Amino acid sequence: MHLSEITHPNQLHGLSIHQLNQIARQIRDKHLETVAASGGHLGPGLGVVELTLALYQTLDLDRDKVIWDVGHQAYPHKLITGRFDRFHTLRQKDGIAGYLNRRESHFDHFGAGHASTSISAALGMALARDLKGESFKVAAVIGDGALTGGMALEAINHAGHLPNTRLLVVLNDNDMSISPNVGALSSYLNKIRLSPPMQFLSDNLEEQIKHLPFMNDKIPQELVNLKGGMKRLAVSKVGAVFEELGFTYIGPVDGHNLEELITTFESAHKHPGPVLVHVATTKGKGYAIAEQDQVGYHAQSPFNLATGKAIPASKPKPPSYAKVFAHTLVKIAENDPRVLGITAAMATGTGLDKLQAKLPKQYIDVGIAEQHAVTLAAGLACEGMRPVVAIYSTFLQRAYDQIIHDICIQNLPVFFCMDRAGIVGADGPTHQGMYDIAYLRCLPNMVIMAPKDEAEMQRMLVTGINYIDGPIAMRYPRGSGYGVPLLEEGWEPLEIGQSEVLRHGDDVLLLAYGTMVNPALQAADLLTEHGLSAAVVNARFVKPLDLDTIAPLAQHTGHVVTLEEGCLPGGFGSAVLEALMDHQVVVPVTRIGVPDQLVEHATPDQAKQSLGLTAPQISERILSVLNKPQPSLTH
Amino acid sequence: MHLSEITHPNQLHGLSIHQLNQIARQIRDKHLETVAASGGHLGPGLGVVELTLALYQTLDLDRDKVIWDVGHQAYPHKLITGRFDRFHTLRQKDGIAGYLNRRESHFDHFGAGHASTSISAALGMALARDLKGESFKVAAVIGDGALTGGMALEAINHAGHLPNTRLLVVLNDNDMSISPNVGALSSYLNKIRLSPPMQFLSDNLEEQIKHLPFMNDKIPQELVNLKGGMKRLAVSKVGAVFEELGFTYIGPVDGHNLEELITTFESAHKHPGPVLVHVATTKGKGYAIAEQDQVGYHAQSPFNLATGKAIPASKPKPPSYAKVFAHTLVKIAENDPRVLGITAAMATGTGLDKLQAKLPKQYIDVGIAEQHAVTLAAGLACEGMRPVVAIYSTFLQRAYDQIIHDICIQNLPVFFCMDRAGIVGADGPTHQGMYDIAYLRCLPNMVIMAPKDEAEMQRMLVTGINYIDGPIAMRYPRGSGYGVPLLEEGWEPLEIGQSEVLRHGDDVLLLAYGTMVNPALQAADLLTEHGLSAAVVNARFVKPLDLDTIAPLAQHTGHVVTLEEGCLPGGFGSAVLEALMDHQVVVPVTRIGVPDQLVEHATPDQAKQSLGLTAPQISERILSVLNKPQPSLTH
Repeated sequence: MHLSEITHPNQLHGLSIHQLNQIARQIRDKHLETVAASGGHLGPGLGVVELTLALYQTLDLDRDKVIWDVGHQAYPHKLITGRFDRFHTLRQKDGIAGYLNRRESHFDHFGAGHASTSISAALGMALARDLKGESFKVAAVIGDGALTGGMALEAINHAGHLPNTRLLVVLNDNDMSISPNVGALSSYLNKIRLSPPMQFLSDNLEEQIKHLPFMNDKIPQELVNLKGGMKRLAVSKVGAVFEELGFTYIGPVDGHNLEELITTFESAHKHPGPVLVHVATTKGKGYAIAEQDQVGYHAQSPFNLATGKAIPASKPKPPSYAKVFAHTLVKIAENDPRVLGITAAMATGTGLDKLQAKLPKQYIDVGIAEQHAVTLAAGLACEGMRPVVAIYSTFLQRAYDQIIHDICIQNLPVFFCMDRAGIVGADGPTHQGMYDIAYLRCLPNMVIMAPKDEAEMQRMLVTGINYIDGPIAMRYPRGSGYGVPLLEEGWEPLEIGQSEVLRHGDDVLLLAYGTMVNPALQAADLLTEHGLSAAVVNARFVKPLDLDTIAPLAQHTGHVVTLEEGCLPGGFGSAVLEALMDHQVVVPVTRIGVPDQLVEHATPDQAKQSLGLTAPQISERILSVLNKPQPSLTH
Repeated sequence: MHLSEITHPNQLHGLSIHQLNQIARQIRDKHLETVAASGGHLGPGLGVVELTLALYQTLDLDRDKVIWDVGHQAYPHKLITGRFDRFHTLRQKDGIAGYLNRRESHFDHFGAGHASTSISAALGMALARDLKGESFKVAAVIGDGALTGGMALEAINHAGHLPNTRLLVVLNDNDMSISPNVGALSSYLNKIRLSPPMQFLSDNLEEQIKHLPFMNDKIPQELVNLKGGMKRLAVSKVGAVFEELGFTYIGPVDGHNLEELITTFESAHKHPGPVLVHVATTKGKGYAIAEQDQVGYHAQSPFNLATGKAIPASKPKPPSYAKVFAHTLVKIAENDPRVLGITAAMATGTGLDKLQAKLPKQYIDVGIAEQHAVTLAAGLACEGMRPVVAIYSTFLQRAYDQIIHDICIQNLPVFFCMDRAGIVGADGPTHQGMYDIAYLRCLPNMVIMAPKDEAEMQRMLVTGINYIDGPIAMRYPRGSGYGVPLLEEGWEPLEIGQSEVLRHGDDVLLLAYGTMVNPALQAADLLTEHGLSAAVVNARFVKPLDLDTIAPLAQHTGHVVTLEEGCLPGGFGSAVLEALMDHQVVVPVTRIGVPDQLVEHATPDQAKQSLGLTAPQISERILSVLNKPQPSLTH
């Protein structure tokens, strides 16, 4: 049987180990070929090929549910659940998503792009099953990195308390998050993985004691007393933490040995309560280059399969915002030992690996633990440090209460540098950085800014670090800057709350935030061709908003257009509306941004096009609005 | 020495156990007397009197830092840090706060009203200390309930990975959250607490083995091999989970034995890395009535000290929203087995204890684990259940990414019932339910509503449970309803997105949300006295907004006043502004609500007064706005 013939995972039933190994090879080939061509996640999927096949051979996917934590380990799952034919469209517009998606396949039982959610969702399904009197199996597959997220630990704590709720947790332990794992739990799992087989300390411990050469063949009472404890000792070596938390622990199992995996899963399925199967896998398994550089090949842009080298873009791109951020932060931190960079398992993505390399003492990776990262920063700020939390916009959502309760209410000077704010492209809805303006600007004491380009980001970085009156946040996008000259020294902080008038005009005010400043300038040019004179302001700050500059221009032009790369409800334009109205400036305002909908995966350019955020679309929109008969003040 | 003479905790240094016990008694007396008179948290503080005194005798509070998790256990701390004289003003306007507050005292090293934050903050301070080359001690005191919050577990995972970072975690284990604890960790701690003394399994285990009656006095090799494991066994009985996670575990210690506590803390301070001292305390200790009813006396309104009975309010109050919610939910759930109530350790506060009593199978308490609660609900919804997440507005902040990533993006029908939305009174800034409108309405697929009174809440409850197209949220306030007749049957769902016109008028439209509907009606009456005719609309839904009703009224009256009990940035009024402007209805809008600031503790009436949210203030405000010369459309 060839992989291409598998359209339903139940077709795996009855296949021999030999046949499964063949399928495994075909999955790896297809996986590699596709990611090499289109880019995507590489290491995670390659590591779980056998795990997936073994699990699915022991399940009936028409009834049973499998919840994959962080969908990026689920490419093998996709390949055997009816998506082989379309797999080449991976992460492309209208193609297969890079993560799981309930709308894409009924085999995607729960979507996920963020980590640590699977056990909670699986437990919910298991509880529903029992309430409905049904009997299907539920399995969560979670990585050792994702397990350190607080939510996963909350779920373990709850599930372990329900001895009669059948739930399988498969711990996919590849000893990595995107970067090497951080934390005591990881060290603990490592210790287990590296332990010699514990035969002597296995379930027949009692037998072993019987054969000790005691006087009179009588086991001394002291040792009898120890017996119960000794049994616990046996599991202590290989899973005490999970056992103490109510799970039956099985493992570690070789994650690339199909026979062992199948036997183990079959045995686990018989267990009437929560059971954790600890599977030791190798990230990037089967592609030597990826096995050797597990960080580099976690995810990849298109690359040459033979050499592993990235295929260079047709024309070289300017450095990314993340790169400029990291470069500048290192320079600042070199001269200020109070400056610390904090990441939650995103060292390479945020660029903080540069800080780690240069100034390891001023770098903290807390693992997948965003809540802890933020409150840790609060503690550091209390002691006069200048913590810079470098985090993706979408992941900062995971620490919302910490921002409110620990930072804003106490007005502590923590600096949030939100990468991947706005449209993220191929990662799709779970990763879009759409909500940060809305969810931050409602919080007291918060200052919020966004640069128009990478050089202004350098100045904002200095601004944020210099600002000690309370919390401050900066958002910037994924991907390349404009290639503007970088400031190598003499970075001057901006004045908090001051905008920048880029262009004067009489007919309309284009008030743009962050990445929309350049499209606004282009749109203004296009409007000129239609005889309209547009003023353009780079807002810089959404909070506080520079009303002193904006209000007169709004009154002068009589029409304001706000532009933002973020959700329209509650966003930047909303802030402008509020401020103008609060100051009795009642003029028409057209808000351009991301409407109240999910933004599916596509290239950033495609997404912007479909959302009407390109310069030509903006100028068209403005022309159509301005050419409408103007509403008048009624009453 | 009398408690009143202690103005600095270092005055405890050198006091004898006898003297400390006297102080302990005085703290309890003052604590009881104050809470009996003014209301406040009772059980938590009484349980940590000795813990506090012992810890502070071993610390120098001019240098060392103590971070109390959830400030409600910190009343004894307040009494020995210079606030004895003002303690009678507890939780009153301009008086001592019920939680810790960095602005109130420099001994309050970190504020907290929510649970699970202390270890993260303490670790931040400890890391800062080491980076600065200082040497003060840092201690976090965390309850066993708060320890189940994911963030605390994230912090344990991080701290346990830093063997050279001195950090003391004091686990105040009273075997309770507000209600009895939930979860495997709690069972585990219980097991430790209930274990007989482990002398035989202590550090001299090796000695014990030597004295076993082996043949030839020779210890068999098998047992020698076991020795290392046995040592681990010793800790396995009393703290393996923490030891495996990198902490040195000490305990359990009798939390009401000062001598034992002091010796233990002194020993713990000598430890060069992370150490956890497990202290077994009794919630309500020293007040028999509270010891016997630990749930009821977690916090109290004013009560008679001799009998423990609450002092009845001067006039009987109508039932609270929470009570009506619970009553109605039970009725609905009785007829619909798909309906499940979910709480995160707030059974009594949310009223879900009524559901637990009546329909235990349809009730889930996950412990202090809001993230897990929400994604668990997502899993339940996937399987066709109707999960109702009953949660305080302020605590739902803790599950923000779960709402976005697991619920909204997947458009799952989970119903959020947000109690304590708006002004909460004496609990102060950490508990105000101010942000939910703003942080929810920016999310795709979310329906959001608020009832004008408790009877409408009943209808909204039915509405939410009947709504299966996606997520839906309802907010309602702390405290009593209006005493309107409750609907005992025939609850009809409301039409999603439909408002209710309560009063027609020509001069101004009062568009009110939730609790502000009644003040709006009163304000409209007052405006009539000034010759102004005000229309009043009960918005019911902030999303979707009933623009079909609102727009014509806005145009007819020419001025809109929005009223909400929530933050103004991004709130209800902001949504109205957006919608009107998007539909080219350009009229002045005055937004009345909670300005962009913290709201300090006070009675709800005092808070509303100070925020200008009373009916007379509202009518005054409207009069002053309408009497101003109207701005005109420029250009």
